[in-house]
Amino acid sequence: MVNETQHACSASSSSRSDGGSSSGSESSRDNSRCSTPILDADRHERLREKMRRRQDAGDKWFSLEFFPPRTANAAVNLISRFDRMGAGGPLFIDVTWHPAGDPGSDKETSSMIIANTAVNYCGLETILHMTCCNQTKDDITGHLRKAKRLGLKNIMALRGDPAGAEWEEEVDGFNYAVDLVKHIRNEFDDYFDICVAGYPKGHPEADSYEADLRHLKEKVFAGADFIITQLFFRPETFLKFMKDCQAIGITCPIIPGIFPIQGYHSLRQLVKLSKLEVPQEIKDVIEPIKDNDAAIRNYGVELAVSMCRELLDSGMVHGLHFYTLNREVATTEVLKRLGLWKEDPRRPLPWAVSAHPKRRVEDVRPIFWASRPKSYIYRTQEWDDFPNGRWGNSSSPAFGELKDYYLFYLKSKSPREELLKMWGEELTGEESVFEVFTCYITGEPNRNGYKVTCMPWNDDPLATETNLLKDQLEKVNRRGILTINSQPNINGKPSTDPIVGWGPSGGYVFQKAYLEFFTSSEIVTALLKVLKKYELRVNYHIVNVKGQNITNAPDLQPNAVTWGIFPGREIIQPTVVDPVSFLYWKDEAFALWIEQWAKLYEEESPSRMIIQYIHDNYYLVNLVDNDFPLENCLWQVVEDTFELLN
Amino acid sequence: MVNETQHACSASSSSRSDGGSSSGSESSRDNSRCSTPILDADRHERLREKMRRRQDAGDKWFSLEFFPPRTANAAVNLISRFDRMGAGGPLFIDVTWHPAGDPGSDKETSSMIIANTAVNYCGLETILHMTCCNQTKDDITGHLRKAKRLGLKNIMALRGDPAGAEWEEEVDGFNYAVDLVKHIRNEFDDYFDICVAGYPKGHPEADSYEADLRHLKEKVFAGADFIITQLFFRPETFLKFMKDCQAIGITCPIIPGIFPIQGYHSLRQLVKLSKLEVPQEIKDVIEPIKDNDAAIRNYGVELAVSMCRELLDSGMVHGLHFYTLNREVATTEVLKRLGLWKEDPRRPLPWAVSAHPKRRVEDVRPIFWASRPKSYIYRTQEWDDFPNGRWGNSSSPAFGELKDYYLFYLKSKSPREELLKMWGEELTGEESVFEVFTCYITGEPNRNGYKVTCMPWNDDPLATETNLLKDQLEKVNRRGILTINSQPNINGKPSTDPIVGWGPSGGYVFQKAYLEFFTSSEIVTALLKVLKKYELRVNYHIVNVKGQNITNAPDLQPNAVTWGIFPGREIIQPTVVDPVSFLYWKDEAFALWIEQWAKLYEEESPSRMIIQYIHDNYYLVNLVDNDFPLENCLWQVVEDTFELLN
Repeated sequence: MVNETQHACSASSSSRSDGGSSSGSESSRDNSRCSTPILDADRHERLREKMRRRQDAGDKWFSLEFFPPRTANAAVNLISRFDRMGAGGPLFIDVTWHPAGDPGSDKETSSMIIANTAVNYCGLETILHMTCCNQTKDDITGHLRKAKRLGLKNIMALRGDPAGAEWEEEVDGFNYAVDLVKHIRNEFDDYFDICVAGYPKGHPEADSYEADLRHLKEKVFAGADFIITQLFFRPETFLKFMKDCQAIGITCPIIPGIFPIQGYHSLRQLVKLSKLEVPQEIKDVIEPIKDNDAAIRNYGVELAVSMCRELLDSGMVHGLHFYTLNREVATTEVLKRLGLWKEDPRRPLPWAVSAHPKRRVEDVRPIFWASRPKSYIYRTQEWDDFPNGRWGNSSSPAFGELKDYYLFYLKSKSPREELLKMWGEELTGEESVFEVFTCYITGEPNRNGYKVTCMPWNDDPLATETNLLKDQLEKVNRRGILTINSQPNINGKPSTDPIVGWGPSGGYVFQKAYLEFFTSSEIVTALLKVLKKYELRVNYHIVNVKGQNITNAPDLQPNAVTWGIFPGREIIQPTVVDPVSFLYWKDEAFALWIEQWAKLYEEESPSRMIIQYIHDNYYLVNLVDNDFPLENCLWQVVEDTFELLN
Repeated sequence: MVNETQHACSASSSSRSDGGSSSGSESSRDNSRCSTPILDADRHERLREKMRRRQDAGDKWFSLEFFPPRTANAAVNLISRFDRMGAGGPLFIDVTWHPAGDPGSDKETSSMIIANTAVNYCGLETILHMTCCNQTKDDITGHLRKAKRLGLKNIMALRGDPAGAEWEEEVDGFNYAVDLVKHIRNEFDDYFDICVAGYPKGHPEADSYEADLRHLKEKVFAGADFIITQLFFRPETFLKFMKDCQAIGITCPIIPGIFPIQGYHSLRQLVKLSKLEVPQEIKDVIEPIKDNDAAIRNYGVELAVSMCRELLDSGMVHGLHFYTLNREVATTEVLKRLGLWKEDPRRPLPWAVSAHPKRRVEDVRPIFWASRPKSYIYRTQEWDDFPNGRWGNSSSPAFGELKDYYLFYLKSKSPREELLKMWGEELTGEESVFEVFTCYITGEPNRNGYKVTCMPWNDDPLATETNLLKDQLEKVNRRGILTINSQPNINGKPSTDPIVGWGPSGGYVFQKAYLEFFTSSEIVTALLKVLKKYELRVNYHIVNVKGQNITNAPDLQPNAVTWGIFPGREIIQPTVVDPVSFLYWKDEAFALWIEQWAKLYEEESPSRMIIQYIHDNYYLVNLVDNDFPLENCLWQVVEDTFELLN
């Protein structure tokens, strides 16, 4: 009767007999038991598996190509672009290898470091390009080792362009991409997913189109997992190429490279580099409008959309790879019109996960770094294992020190002049600081007419969730409770809630109300008196820059402040207030006053001294209301404190 | 201002500098991060620390002494007594060493095994007595090693009685308890807490009271942690002894041994063994009523209560040790009248924790063994580590096989004749079985007038919590949904709730509705059709004895079905429905039909064949309603199934 075995359980009676039949056997519980239940598929699959799964599900996808920037400032901007374009849901991004830019170095503009930042700090599945010509085997191996150490899992294996005008075979190095593919497989076994380039029109240096197809087949048979093509201008070019590949036995995924024309000059440059010819029908349209950037971009978008549609409609194409030229508008527009851009308001966890393989299991973080996730990742980058399921009673989490507040991925997106406009060219007292905090909360312009869109503790405008608390936050900031982090209490909202939801659908999310702020010692004195009335309900940690610490947290236990209950899953509790980590966060939170704000002003200037005074004398306070089903009492706590002071 | 540092955080800025200052250091996260937050103190302290903490808190306590039983049946009863008397909250129990009963053996009546059962299966802090005379050093070391291996942490070091009438010093062994104390400290360092005996009137064989006090001091200085005294009849005897001990420098806790007189003969025998003299004022009362057991026991209780009150009132006594003679009534009565018997309806976790040190961190179990916790402990006794925080995606938990259903601590408390009366001398069909299940749920007598107070899957009457579901359970059992485990959904009740509460106060507990039952394949066929409508809401696992398994659980993930949110703590989720463990439980659940029920009947008898038929053909089903905030839909699922069948 019940032979319709719907989701047959793979641990059938027989397959588990080795574990079950020996009553005296040693424990052999699987190591995987600590993985985050809801994120397994996404976080544990390698790129080729994700590709396969999306293809099997008939789920179309896209990917984005970027090149490394030339300056540190451009790198800061590129990282913000990763964050913004990452929101649209690319399957992966890739970063080109820029031989002239010391691509394997630790420079903030190197290919290696940009890819590292994409993986670790932006949580993006990333392919690092690597070319092999003009380099020794040892160089290459060194680069690959470094990539692996940084958490990179995918390599685009390329030959690259020869140093001189003429191509000469090298004896000690590699001459073809296929050599690089073989080398990666020899030295790193199956660790990396390998991508190789395909040329729909044949490689310009190849003897013939057919010869180039044979080279491609060699690269695939040497161990490449998929192919991304050079750009092309007509869909039929790609479709023919794909059929030709299949005809000679290439069965791996082949992803068309899409180049939305964005401007006359960039098109000309690309064409020159790639030695491609622009079809006459395109030239005919472009030439007359070559000085009208907007018109060309519009045309480019139209053209790309129509070509992509044709490719997708063919049924042979499951993913599209975009040559973005590090620009957002055109590619985003194409993706949105194709319906591929999917800003999923639901997050797998309340914070953005990192894509480093060793952080796969990570599913708990202290709430303190909520607005500075990149700093958190930086300070925990040396950890060998990450908290999972429970933060635990960690008496000494080894947080790395944050010495360099100017690490490019931690740097403010705004230049000094802008920050001065937002935070005040000249401060007249602590009240000027209260005003800055208040304007950040309300979104109203400050007295000089500038909106305060970021703060030293938060490089972005207020989160939607924080908006829920806006009125109360405004009131308390005006009076010197300088809030830097907060969340409302949530008693079982659907996990699909557009504002506070996270995790898979069908679940319920919960939060304890949280409030974190700097405030003066006078207010702290009053607050502590008030908190006595809330002793059983509110947990607090109060600390100054010297580390004087006052808390009622029992036994240094962390307090879970965000958790979710999902169908058929264990409980996930992604954020905690951890008393021990708070002291590490404290160092960073206080330092930001000086590093990001005080240093905008001349030494010994009154403005600088005001910030220095706050840094030296204020306390950092966090409060948790444990009674999440009741109305948040933290506002009442603050209200009572102000009342006591009056 | 804020120098009133209330609960100064021990991880001050300076103490954590080693972890925080080295940004490149390897991860050194503390191992303790996985311990169960709410149970730390109770589960991690050793006995002497618990004693100290209770004393510091001014919290009076009691302990209970038992001797090993002579027969296996008596052992079964003693274990039930441990469970019942454990409910009153003893700080520890102790088990005497019975040299004639092969005390270190694996016999179910040995001192070693009884103590093992108390620790591991009843979760009681336990002291094992051990005598040293007439044994070689190697014997003793062997016993101690075994005790350690079994999870025993406390030893009462005694000399014991010489084999012959006359005392002779042994060359190769131990002559005094102090030798045993030294030996334990030499061989096992600080692993064991050691208790020694004190004689308020002096040891009968000692040269003098003073000489005996000096011996006691030697034992303490050799490494004993505390003293339990021989029984005495007058409080002033103990108080004088205690002062005398203190006068010669004995500072460890001294616990008076209390002997509530329970009968004329037991008193006489004990007096003879201990060579104590019964004071004339007691003899005067007892002699006239020596044939009236009840009168003697009442007098004994009165006497004990008044003596204990005097001891406690002296301010010198913090705990009382009771010589129970393996009986419950008198000791329980004394404790209740003293106000020391504290049945705490709140449980630290929904299931009874084991006291084995290696299970300290355990805080998650599959729900299946909820009514058979001893079997669960047995089947996981070989595990080296226990799930904590999260059950995890364990693909092969190494459950030991349960071959011997007659292990004395797993044996039914009821004899065969009683079981036959409850479950039917003669079954006439599957309906007779439905009736038995129904009578168990309702508490009504069966057709022969006997109440069904236990079932093969549950040795106790229905849990209070299950009573919440009584009406529905009755209805479905009548129709052949033979329930063996269930819980209602709970959406945030206070952790102090007398029925469903657990954990510290101030928290909120939650449950997903759960229902587990045996049923026919016809019903399963209909059920599966109905379940399609509930696909997103209800998780199910359906399996027959052959292991045919039908489930909609994603990726073999466990489903948390009980969890609690507490002030200042991480989330605790003590029970899960684990798809993999279910297949191990299935073996046990099906076997119980045969082992406990079918085997009551003659082979080939119709009754036996009916049970065998059910065993061979029924399915074991579990259902979880994931939507815990809504009304439990599982009854509707069953209702729909019956409707479909009609």
